[in-house]
Amino acid sequence: MEQRVIDTLRRVFELNGFIGIETRAVEQGSSLLKKGETSKEIYLLSRLQEVGHESDTPVNDRLGLHFDLTVPLSRYVVEHSGDLAFPFKRWQIQKVWRGERPQEGRFREFVQADIDVIGNGDLPDHYEVELPLVMVSALEELRAFGLPKATVHANNRKLSEGFYRGLGLTDIEGVLREIDKLDKIGADEVAKLLVDTCGADEAQARACLELAELTAADGKELADKFDALCAAHGIAADSAAYMLARQGLDTLAMIVDEAALIRPGAVIADLKIARGLDYYTGSVYETFLDGAASLGSICSGGRYDNLASQGNRKYPGVGLSIGLSRLVSYMLHSAGAHASRVCPASVLVAVWNEQDRSAANLIANTLRSRGIAADVAPTAAKLGKQIKYADKLGIPYVWFPAGATDGDDTASDEVKNIVTGDQQPADPKSWQPDTVYARQTVVID
Amino acid sequence: MEQRVIDTLRRVFELNGFIGIETRAVEQGSSLLKKGETSKEIYLLSRLQEVGHESDTPVNDRLGLHFDLTVPLSRYVVEHSGDLAFPFKRWQIQKVWRGERPQEGRFREFVQADIDVIGNGDLPDHYEVELPLVMVSALEELRAFGLPKATVHANNRKLSEGFYRGLGLTDIEGVLREIDKLDKIGADEVAKLLVDTCGADEAQARACLELAELTAADGKELADKFDALCAAHGIAADSAAYMLARQGLDTLAMIVDEAALIRPGAVIADLKIARGLDYYTGSVYETFLDGAASLGSICSGGRYDNLASQGNRKYPGVGLSIGLSRLVSYMLHSAGAHASRVCPASVLVAVWNEQDRSAANLIANTLRSRGIAADVAPTAAKLGKQIKYADKLGIPYVWFPAGATDGDDTASDEVKNIVTGDQQPADPKSWQPDTVYARQTVVID
Repeated sequence: MEQRVIDTLRRVFELNGFIGIETRAVEQGSSLLKKGETSKEIYLLSRLQEVGHESDTPVNDRLGLHFDLTVPLSRYVVEHSGDLAFPFKRWQIQKVWRGERPQEGRFREFVQADIDVIGNGDLPDHYEVELPLVMVSALEELRAFGLPKATVHANNRKLSEGFYRGLGLTDIEGVLREIDKLDKIGADEVAKLLVDTCGADEAQARACLELAELTAADGKELADKFDALCAAHGIAADSAAYMLARQGLDTLAMIVDEAALIRPGAVIADLKIARGLDYYTGSVYETFLDGAASLGSICSGGRYDNLASQGNRKYPGVGLSIGLSRLVSYMLHSAGAHASRVCPASVLVAVWNEQDRSAANLIANTLRSRGIAADVAPTAAKLGKQIKYADKLGIPYVWFPAGATDGDDTASDEVKNIVTGDQQPADPKSWQPDTVYARQTVVID
Repeated sequence: MEQRVIDTLRRVFELNGFIGIETRAVEQGSSLLKKGETSKEIYLLSRLQEVGHESDTPVNDRLGLHFDLTVPLSRYVVEHSGDLAFPFKRWQIQKVWRGERPQEGRFREFVQADIDVIGNGDLPDHYEVELPLVMVSALEELRAFGLPKATVHANNRKLSEGFYRGLGLTDIEGVLREIDKLDKIGADEVAKLLVDTCGADEAQARACLELAELTAADGKELADKFDALCAAHGIAADSAAYMLARQGLDTLAMIVDEAALIRPGAVIADLKIARGLDYYTGSVYETFLDGAASLGSICSGGRYDNLASQGNRKYPGVGLSIGLSRLVSYMLHSAGAHASRVCPASVLVAVWNEQDRSAANLIANTLRSRGIAADVAPTAAKLGKQIKYADKLGIPYVWFPAGATDGDDTASDEVKNIVTGDQQPADPKSWQPDTVYARQTVVID
């Protein structure tokens, strides 16, 4: 199941020209600790021989497991900057680890699927609409596995920050943090928190909520409603705060309008999207599934201008990340997908007695050489037991080599579909399984 | 490169009916410490918050990274024994970690590719020839990437142990350890070590070396030569030691003869193969590449009867493991394979000016919907710069949307092969790239 999902995502990312990279799971503590907020969740490593002496080494000099794929990307880009063609579009699907106690629906170890585009010095803003669209088309492919329709909700940090500053607020991080709770605790509670913890008065708090609740059908309506809101709250069109907000607004309007042209309804403006991480500097995205509000965002990201740098050189980027383990877990439990421990083989070749095993191996090898996955019965047990083994493994066909079938001699090989009961003469050089019974590998822990 | 190698192995394993599993990288210390010899190389984990208090937790209760895929398989089989169909054939390709200082050609983190078959209570010995043959056919597929021919060298622990005991030796582990050095230090040095460290006299040491150097074309010759050797050293055919050796000999003879039927020359008897790990109880395998003796064994394994158990229930197994990172590294440096950071896209769609980007996106999406990986130029730069970008990424085709090409208007889209210089009118709904210029993703760290 997870493997099939990964294969699907990889195919879409490559169709869109993203280059696959894989980085080592182990990074220097000093790299891992750069990013702030999540640093508390890092797993550090120590060699067994060092037990009891771990503290001799400063955390920055120790090794740790990566907790996302953005920190490794940042290191990778700086290390390989001389060899890369920029903008560098990469996909990366790997395990990450967080040093937290495991709870229901959260794992210590999980798979993330990321796409990012990284510029050298600058990065055109058309990538801020292209990347969410690639993710939407990838998620669209997963609907074959029962995933509901996904919608990316976009906002822009500059828009929010400019508006808050225009209102006279200064604790921008704080306001974003409280607005982020809107869906969870409701407007009244958020207003209260804005007043209690962010230095807002009642009117400022209500204005923040009005912005968060602003909706628009297109870029034009978004701009008009935003300008009206600014006017209503006395934010002058020539103020620095308005100009900052307007920069974000123009990008967001472009995203909404461009996305509507290519894939209507896939990317919408949602001005309450805040994203906790402070390294986003422009667009921010969260992605929700129809009918799965409680799952929260399944794919998030944004634009960051300052993640990697090398001397004066900055590497701005836009990226989105799917929490794949959580998504697959949802698909298995709620979205009608099935996991079963099935064998990839289409055929089990029966063995009448151990002396015939070589003949059975030959049949299996002939099938394999034609791309048909085949297994050979583990022992020359009674036929019923061999069929039961195939059934337990989910192998749909059992092959009877020429010889005794149920006590009767058969002149030629025969193959039985154990699902339908149908049995036919067959030649390993030409027989084809019915595609309905083609097998897929399933990965389970 | 590595991704393509993994995909190839996976395909062969699945064609042979192996089920893919993936286990978490993090295991309990108590599981990791079971296996003895390599336990010193474990990486233990600690949460950042616990720094300075790591030693409060006994090593058995701490978490660590798996250092092979056999320990996790053992845990997996015991945990899922109720759901699995036995014999359970699984493939697993994952990273493993060893807490050793990195040296040239050895990594802290590397990928292993394992196949094992696990029985419930017992396991027929035909798997002891089937598993090395599956590995050989997988390695055979890698010859497309420049890998030389691989040969599995098989031996049997019971054969060696029975013979050594028949000679009157008791430090079996010690003798195996010294015999293992034969290729490295030569017969005279090994004889000296057998005398100095394993309690052997000159005659016993020479007998051990004679066994190690015994060669045979088939099972019959192997048995005849072995019997002659036993007779020469006074090992009686009715002794317990001989009977143990004979058990191993029969299995080894079966392996050599069966393998010769299916794939002549792929699996040979080599009585100096020892394998350091003490959990092997029967067949042991090492695999060497033609012309790459210095690389040592690239794929090793054997039969183990006591790896996993649950109460009285034993789960015997046969397995082989490829050290994939080392193999890929060899293929890149010595075997003529190439790694380059190339883009999976076949086509770069040029952009005349930013207003035309939507049209370029539409062309790219049409190509993608037909399975042709496509990228769009990052900026509406001069055409020469766009072609240079494609060239740097290894994208063979540049698509010119209808409009101005080099200042001349073109009525229809055209596509240029930047390798050959050929330029033709083209329709995104029907154009196909020349297969010679099809792209493959390359994974590099």
